[in-house]
Amino acid sequence: MNRPILPSRRGFLAGSVGLAGGLRLASAHATTPNLQTGFFGPHQSGIATPVLPHTYFAALDIVTDKSAQLAALMQSWTKAGAELTQGAELTLTFGFGQTLFVKDGVDRFGLAHQRPEAFVDLPKFVGDQLVPERTGGDLSVQACGQTPQATLDAVRTLLRLAEGVAQVRWVQAGFVTLPPGKETPRNLMGFKDGSFNVSIDDPAAMARNVWVGEEGPPWMRGGSYVVARPTRIALEHWDKMKLAFQEQTVGRQKESGAVIGEKDEFAPLNLDATDSDGNTLVAENAHVRLAAPQNNDGAEILRRSYSYDNGVSMVAERWPPWRHAMELDVGLLFMCYQRDPRSGFIKIFDKMSKFDMMNQFVTPIGGGMFACPAGVAEGRYLAQELFEAVGAS
Amino acid sequence: MNRPILPSRRGFLAGSVGLAGGLRLASAHATTPNLQTGFFGPHQSGIATPVLPHTYFAALDIVTDKSAQLAALMQSWTKAGAELTQGAELTLTFGFGQTLFVKDGVDRFGLAHQRPEAFVDLPKFVGDQLVPERTGGDLSVQACGQTPQATLDAVRTLLRLAEGVAQVRWVQAGFVTLPPGKETPRNLMGFKDGSFNVSIDDPAAMARNVWVGEEGPPWMRGGSYVVARPTRIALEHWDKMKLAFQEQTVGRQKESGAVIGEKDEFAPLNLDATDSDGNTLVAENAHVRLAAPQNNDGAEILRRSYSYDNGVSMVAERWPPWRHAMELDVGLLFMCYQRDPRSGFIKIFDKMSKFDMMNQFVTPIGGGMFACPAGVAEGRYLAQELFEAVGAS
Repeated sequence: MNRPILPSRRGFLAGSVGLAGGLRLASAHATTPNLQTGFFGPHQSGIATPVLPHTYFAALDIVTDKSAQLAALMQSWTKAGAELTQGAELTLTFGFGQTLFVKDGVDRFGLAHQRPEAFVDLPKFVGDQLVPERTGGDLSVQACGQTPQATLDAVRTLLRLAEGVAQVRWVQAGFVTLPPGKETPRNLMGFKDGSFNVSIDDPAAMARNVWVGEEGPPWMRGGSYVVARPTRIALEHWDKMKLAFQEQTVGRQKESGAVIGEKDEFAPLNLDATDSDGNTLVAENAHVRLAAPQNNDGAEILRRSYSYDNGVSMVAERWPPWRHAMELDVGLLFMCYQRDPRSGFIKIFDKMSKFDMMNQFVTPIGGGMFACPAGVAEGRYLAQELFEAVGAS
Repeated sequence: MNRPILPSRRGFLAGSVGLAGGLRLASAHATTPNLQTGFFGPHQSGIATPVLPHTYFAALDIVTDKSAQLAALMQSWTKAGAELTQGAELTLTFGFGQTLFVKDGVDRFGLAHQRPEAFVDLPKFVGDQLVPERTGGDLSVQACGQTPQATLDAVRTLLRLAEGVAQVRWVQAGFVTLPPGKETPRNLMGFKDGSFNVSIDDPAAMARNVWVGEEGPPWMRGGSYVVARPTRIALEHWDKMKLAFQEQTVGRQKESGAVIGEKDEFAPLNLDATDSDGNTLVAENAHVRLAAPQNNDGAEILRRSYSYDNGVSMVAERWPPWRHAMELDVGLLFMCYQRDPRSGFIKIFDKMSKFDMMNQFVTPIGGGMFACPAGVAEGRYLAQELFEAVGAS
């Protein structure tokens, strides 16, 4: 049995991994000149970098009790991450779950005092149907790239490097169809998704809403908190709704993406607009209203979601005629990045989970929150400050 | 509740479907001029058309006992198929399972006498671990396209049109990373897959090996039989094998794709080549040897496989230390087309299932065989001759 070897040219010819083939194909795509997917820098890749059409997200459970092994894994992942992304249109984003710091009340690795104040547990939201096997995890790894194979191959390599230290807990692949130019992509509900979003091209907005600043521990400064929640969409119901009802639910027009009552997708959101009878144009429980910063003390999060397709699953109805059927198990891998989850996702979603008209069509089924450390400077490794702080490196 | 409306421009604005958005995105891709993905013609699209990077395969169970409803579904699918593929880089391929003709000994639709002689049941092969819920089906629909969303949206539309007549039984999405030019793509094992294949550009070879001729019933002439079998790949084992062993297993070199002992991927397969000790270079149980036409009375099939990623699944080992773990549930949606399965897949795979060295890494877990009728002439509908023959149209 061979030890894993990183899929460098040399590793490939030496022979043991067998992933290099796929990876080299991925790198055959010319790198877009202004697409900085390089591994090193103040921030991890995959957050402020442009969205790529495919993703593969994996959450891992740690199976060692030795913090030195964890630190070694971070070193190994850093080396691999740099090699995998070199010349490839591929981003990698690593994160830490709450259970890395404290699990079942136990400070497994002496890291409890390093858990950031902002890194609270996600509450149980109304409507959550989280499947334990698809929820949580001590570590997260996300690859984004041009093909499913490139992202799968990258994570597969990282999982192999973790053998004996961590093992996969749940995964979710995702995709987004990127229209030409800068058009907003559509999700599986057929609506544009992401018309209003924090701009990755606006450093001030990113600093305000996405990047952890001086308030965080050193290893998180320049990092961000990601919420990643696979959320099933009941297309079998949604597809039968009339267009007008779908648009009321979202608060936007389906074809143009414009807010109801507006012509332009990017027209400012006027929540007070009324029709001639004085009724608000955007319903009180419309998705876009409840998500709006003006309804959430200015809270803004960087959304970066992907559609997912997990095949079919059995649905058995509990009322006559007790229909049993396979239905499409598809949805949205909802993802968002924020500087502080308490004033970000938790603030916004607490209200949405209670009132959003869209809730009758969507059900969060798993996922969690992960602290994505700052980017890595060349010569250093991922979250080195964290492990040095506890003498584990 | 609205009736499904086809996602034409008119249907979109009228409002009920909500799939049009996604589909119109798909059609934004310029159609490659020489890529004939048009719906009408002597053959169905998706067989002799170039491989596209994403697929979505669905098998359906019929839930009506009225053959006239089936014929009506074929008319509805024909209309939808023509609209969905118009101007889009999208192929659709429809098929019929054995159970459409006879199920549990019952001739449900009066079609039993129309079952082609060549359309035999697939035998149970050595190593098959077919999960009933992922096996068989009365009807099949496959979409191939440029994005997962385009293929999913197309099949989703067709499934909705089938409501009350047929419902989904199993699905499998797949992908293939198409390298630049005409290079052979690699599967998840890292090897080129498809170096030797029937050429879709060789009409004589296609007529000989793929298209049903005068020997078939009228509705199958110009059609083909597809075998579609999701086959798990034990990457957790494969990735640990040494390069030399992997190459012996396949019978090809990993980087170049050339048969062992050759330099060129497309060099003719010389199964008699020996080393200086007189040992054959290509092992007796190598994959490439067992699949070779010269070992199978000249049998050739058109392979058209896709990789798949179904997330992770629980694996519990039956020996100490009784390891329980989540492992990647990934593999190959093996697909091949042939004129006669008896002298095609069944002939070849009977031997391979017993002797192929690769079997220790691959496990067929479902799928089946479907008779894909001839292409549709404009003004007619899919398999019209079949339904007219039984007075169902």
